[in-house]
Amino acid sequence: MKPEEWEKLLLSATERVRGRVAPLSRKGGRGRTVGQGASGDRTIYADKAAEDVILKALSRAEVRVLSEEAGLVGGKGTATLAIVDPLDGSSNFERGIPFYCTSVAIAEGDSLDSVAVGVVRDLVTGDVYSAVRGRGARKNGREIGTSRETELSKAVVGIDLSRGGRGNAERLAPLVGAVKRQIHLGANALELCYMAEGRSDAFVDVRGRIRITDLAAAYLIAAEAGAVITGTDGRKLDATFDLSHRLSFVASANENLHKQILEVVGEPRGGGAQRG
Amino acid sequence: MKPEEWEKLLLSATERVRGRVAPLSRKGGRGRTVGQGASGDRTIYADKAAEDVILKALSRAEVRVLSEEAGLVGGKGTATLAIVDPLDGSSNFERGIPFYCTSVAIAEGDSLDSVAVGVVRDLVTGDVYSAVRGRGARKNGREIGTSRETELSKAVVGIDLSRGGRGNAERLAPLVGAVKRQIHLGANALELCYMAEGRSDAFVDVRGRIRITDLAAAYLIAAEAGAVITGTDGRKLDATFDLSHRLSFVASANENLHKQILEVVGEPRGGGAQRG
Repeated sequence: MKPEEWEKLLLSATERVRGRVAPLSRKGGRGRTVGQGASGDRTIYADKAAEDVILKALSRAEVRVLSEEAGLVGGKGTATLAIVDPLDGSSNFERGIPFYCTSVAIAEGDSLDSVAVGVVRDLVTGDVYSAVRGRGARKNGREIGTSRETELSKAVVGIDLSRGGRGNAERLAPLVGAVKRQIHLGANALELCYMAEGRSDAFVDVRGRIRITDLAAAYLIAAEAGAVITGTDGRKLDATFDLSHRLSFVASANENLHKQILEVVGEPRGGGAQRG
Repeated sequence: MKPEEWEKLLLSATERVRGRVAPLSRKGGRGRTVGQGASGDRTIYADKAAEDVILKALSRAEVRVLSEEAGLVGGKGTATLAIVDPLDGSSNFERGIPFYCTSVAIAEGDSLDSVAVGVVRDLVTGDVYSAVRGRGARKNGREIGTSRETELSKAVVGIDLSRGGRGNAERLAPLVGAVKRQIHLGANALELCYMAEGRSDAFVDVRGRIRITDLAAAYLIAAEAGAVITGTDGRKLDATFDLSHRLSFVASANENLHKQILEVVGEPRGGGAQRG
């Protein structure tokens, strides 16, 4: 299929996920655990329900699927891979915090560079962010771009400090102190899309916890919207499509801001141990 | 007027604020500055528009008004005071982040203890949190209560790290490292109401920046929902109704959790300088 056809399929599939998850968001069975996913995380019923919808939508296409709960599924004889996080922000979902999304990317090769299509849908509002490589990023079909803020002291920055321990919080204290506002909404793929459309100026997650399934779609959307995304050493971010691989990254609205953030949280190229 | 009559008036007034602010939330004039408020903060057009709606709604009642933009207004010969933050989360509003609210409290005396009615309305979803002193807290008319989580390592905690500088971030690093998830959504009154209904387990703001107008309504709502709210020294929080007065506080879903948080961020009673 052509990238535009994939995008169309994913727009429709993610809308169906929203239809499936919305009724589950009411209090009650919201946090019911049904097992453990391929990624090692606890799977709640809504994760599984969302994944089932995506897998069904993709079952008629020639594609292998790498998903957070099910792991690698099906599709012999094709290089095309769908990278799925059925419910990013599960913890928000469980607590009734209305900020979570579904994320699907299509890759033609075996690294982040080969992601050709990315779709992230806000499962609360229905807003959908999408990108086709080389053709820009869109929200609900309209082109989006990153902010032009270049002063760190005026920047609104998403910083994920959760489960990173005291060390991570201490490491990031200089950045927290340097920006105008630290926010963390709790669903990193969607928070990256907020950055892509200029709602924030950067997003920093250097805990070394994020998976390729969390990141693949939003990475393309942010990059196509003009964001600069690298590792903490300033190098191009890359990763194989493997659930055991964990990443750290800094994503900024523009080069100028990116440089300032790396100066505060980064490490010299090739220097020292991997702290991220 | 009786507290229930005030509550009814505020439910209606805040719904009108929502009607006024919603059309302004579209991109364009969203961040237009129109001056400086009585609190010293920059006033954007939406702050002023929201305040005008509240002031008009209150103009027929016997009440003085303390509002973030206008300062203290009118109402000679009455002890009743309305404490208003027309648009809490202005910065979110400006950036298009859909999390901001309007907050109005009614006090019969001159300290936080005398707040008799509190109403906080989510201006995006329309959800409204309200409380009448001694009669519990409600969301959209239904009773709400705080979470029963008592383990800090499992707790979702709102922590405001913005504009607190590197020192505040370093001071709070042990807390950030001790909780399950740190979130910050960017409108503290609304985030306190999230805590009041069990969406999070605590909310910590020890920057010494928060104003009584930000806090009065949500304070009553959280307290009536079962939350424990004190200063960082564990003492009862109190403040006069004065825009120049700034506060630090820790709000927790229950006593058990509160004690653990104070152990990490608190200071001994009566001991040392006021760090908050």
